[in-house]
Amino acid sequence: MYPNLLMKRASLTPNRVALRFNDQEWTFAQLLGKATKYAEKLHTKGITRGMRVAILASSDVRLVVVLHGCMQIGCELVMLNERLSEEELNYQLADSAPDLLLVDDHAKRTLSFANKWSFDDVEGAEQTAFEVEKEWPKERTITIMYTSGTTGRPKGVRQSLENHLMNATGSALNLGVQPNDCWLCTMPLFHISGFSILMRSVIYGMTVSLHTKFDALAAVEEILSGTVTRMSVVAVTLERMLTVLEERELSFPDTFRSMLVGGGPVPLHYLERAIERNIPVLQTYGMTETASQTTTLASEDAIIKLGSAGKPLFFANVRIDGVEKIGEICIKGPHVTQGYVGAAEQKNPLVDGWLHTGDLGYLDEEGYLFVVDRRSDLIISGGENIYPAEIEQALAKHPAVKEAGVAGRQDDKWGQVPVAFVVLKEETTEESLRAFMKKQLASYKQPVDYYFVDQLPRNASNKLLRREFFNHIKNT
Amino acid sequence: MYPNLLMKRASLTPNRVALRFNDQEWTFAQLLGKATKYAEKLHTKGITRGMRVAILASSDVRLVVVLHGCMQIGCELVMLNERLSEEELNYQLADSAPDLLLVDDHAKRTLSFANKWSFDDVEGAEQTAFEVEKEWPKERTITIMYTSGTTGRPKGVRQSLENHLMNATGSALNLGVQPNDCWLCTMPLFHISGFSILMRSVIYGMTVSLHTKFDALAAVEEILSGTVTRMSVVAVTLERMLTVLEERELSFPDTFRSMLVGGGPVPLHYLERAIERNIPVLQTYGMTETASQTTTLASEDAIIKLGSAGKPLFFANVRIDGVEKIGEICIKGPHVTQGYVGAAEQKNPLVDGWLHTGDLGYLDEEGYLFVVDRRSDLIISGGENIYPAEIEQALAKHPAVKEAGVAGRQDDKWGQVPVAFVVLKEETTEESLRAFMKKQLASYKQPVDYYFVDQLPRNASNKLLRREFFNHIKNT
Repeated sequence: MYPNLLMKRASLTPNRVALRFNDQEWTFAQLLGKATKYAEKLHTKGITRGMRVAILASSDVRLVVVLHGCMQIGCELVMLNERLSEEELNYQLADSAPDLLLVDDHAKRTLSFANKWSFDDVEGAEQTAFEVEKEWPKERTITIMYTSGTTGRPKGVRQSLENHLMNATGSALNLGVQPNDCWLCTMPLFHISGFSILMRSVIYGMTVSLHTKFDALAAVEEILSGTVTRMSVVAVTLERMLTVLEERELSFPDTFRSMLVGGGPVPLHYLERAIERNIPVLQTYGMTETASQTTTLASEDAIIKLGSAGKPLFFANVRIDGVEKIGEICIKGPHVTQGYVGAAEQKNPLVDGWLHTGDLGYLDEEGYLFVVDRRSDLIISGGENIYPAEIEQALAKHPAVKEAGVAGRQDDKWGQVPVAFVVLKEETTEESLRAFMKKQLASYKQPVDYYFVDQLPRNASNKLLRREFFNHIKNT
Repeated sequence: MYPNLLMKRASLTPNRVALRFNDQEWTFAQLLGKATKYAEKLHTKGITRGMRVAILASSDVRLVVVLHGCMQIGCELVMLNERLSEEELNYQLADSAPDLLLVDDHAKRTLSFANKWSFDDVEGAEQTAFEVEKEWPKERTITIMYTSGTTGRPKGVRQSLENHLMNATGSALNLGVQPNDCWLCTMPLFHISGFSILMRSVIYGMTVSLHTKFDALAAVEEILSGTVTRMSVVAVTLERMLTVLEERELSFPDTFRSMLVGGGPVPLHYLERAIERNIPVLQTYGMTETASQTTTLASEDAIIKLGSAGKPLFFANVRIDGVEKIGEICIKGPHVTQGYVGAAEQKNPLVDGWLHTGDLGYLDEEGYLFVVDRRSDLIISGGENIYPAEIEQALAKHPAVKEAGVAGRQDDKWGQVPVAFVVLKEETTEESLRAFMKKQLASYKQPVDYYFVDQLPRNASNKLLRREFFNHIKNT
């Protein structure tokens, strides 16, 4: 058993600031008060321990209260990505089968679901007191987040209390924890990158400064003001902040302690520019299945271990599977998911306790991890994971498409962008394909270019050779 | 499973200083090197995983290497208190039945034991490589420390890896962790107060500055030099440091972050004097059975919550048992021992998961713990626990003694000191009793005064009323 996180934190440091949003602040005691009130309203509406609640909302103080309110009851949270298409959301709702869908705003969220309430619908309810658990079982599923695999169908990953807690603890032992810490959160809360900041907040007693959207200027100014000590970014958002600093010829103050950069590799010149601007960049390797970071590269090693994602955090273990130096990255530790919900529920993500990531990499002689290639030809665009197979399956539904392949192309701004290679069985236009795809997939998953080709490169066992798509075009 | 602590730490921060002793320093990589070498020598001498090794030694760098060496093999450490009498040590050896007794110096440690080696005996052996475990089971017993209970016979408390790790983690979430932390250890390593500092060192990546004995001047000077950020003391040692500072009219620098004061209450005027000298005093309530701290009072609350031991750390839970406001303090959490070795092995220290401490206390409306009375009329003298029953049993062995009672008397220097009340069955002298007792018990357990009385105050069920001894004398 572990403590009820927010309740324990509010008991330990009631008057510390838990949340800052739009120039307003809430202490841990206030946040617990609001979360409890919300929980009592949900309780009136029949929501009880063990129920599953899907949530579709933008990051703001209300969402934080709703998330903690649901946790106070003991619900499992299905964190829906607001950038997804209606069809993608419907799949995740059908797969996770929540007891309730909570949305921030009916007008903004038009998808239909049997039991769908807005935040306001719940706000209007009476409060009914219920017995709040002081302790939570380690195995409790706190969140369910969907992530795609090689098959293209997103799987609902369970993140347990133990996963979140041990991840936060391992990160604390790496980065340090200070009573005046404040983490700037511009990552969406439905992503593990954002949600894990909320978890660290209640575990460490740390302030979260929450921004609904990433705004380079706002983020830079807040850090310059000296009130922020940590931040999580991806390469593309780091670059935008660097540009702001460079334009103003400013550097970050020493009060700022660590800039965690995840979601793929960071180009060398970003690192060099970051050093110029006094930004301690810590590159990380993490994923939904590990409740965020598994390895982190200390900023002092950033240049000497260029391209490395660092060493496994205190509780994490990394092994390379295979006979060559480069093999599949396998991860073990209390931060690793115990499994899935829905269609993938019977699948065990672990083999002898090890998560097989599908990512390729190696450990150097000093134990630093180098990620050579992300799993399943994963495309990482602005920190978002895009699985080619998912786009390919969507394309294949178009009546004119015989088969389709998708690969990532390097992009200065986004790191990578998806590009489609299509073999037709009947005439159609690129416009027709684009219109068709818009209905099916989130905008960040839309191929930026379409190439019509005669055939797709495949290997002997007929597996798509996505990395050869671009060569293939040149040659044909 | 958790990582092999020292190995993991040496992998994460190999070049950070692990240990400072007599102006010499060892990094984590160097400490691992020395510990592994020592382990390979022990291995040559037949010591293997799961064996129990008792250790009797003074705190110095060699002892740290020996402790880590034994842990690398996977041995259970029986931590013997070098202040105990030979009879007391023999009892603990008989009870814990170790495979080996390791002493720092044969000349200094004359007690006999079948399989007894000095550190040098092992140093002289060849090295044999063995397969070091990268992961350790959570339940592994790391240390066994003896502590007395109501029955007077000391019990060997098992402290598991989980106990140590969760205690250290909970403490980190309370005090914070910084990469430049250095904990000054003047507590004996055979005590949980000292040993827990070694554990924090490898878990946090923190330097330990180790002193063999507490020396107020040396401790103050080291802190004044700015190289120490944390320290653990008891009230009597805190007072000595205050005196040094006051004589020199100096205060601690801001680099010093926390002074953890355990082993009983801290007088108000010490707190006031500490504030004058810029010492952030954190009062704690801890014990062998909880691998050190359970509750800690933040320094900013020291005056407003005078006399409180603070709030339970993140993973700790405290409950008061009984119908009145004041009741028995019960503790739950992953830092609580799972049991004993030897004669007490069958005893379960937990009832429904709760450790019943025997200490009396209450929680105020804000959840702060107040320890009203230590268990079993426990006498705390200079931070050492003294159990009256143990002294009473020793006295009762004297041929002239009919029965004996022992109670604590307030003492300006030590907090409390033991005083004996003796009913004789034949003539004897105080000198005879003193000589007799010297052979049986450590010097700090020797009664400072002997009162010869006609009878001892008992309640209806014949239980000794130790708190009434002093009144009893006045009235007779």
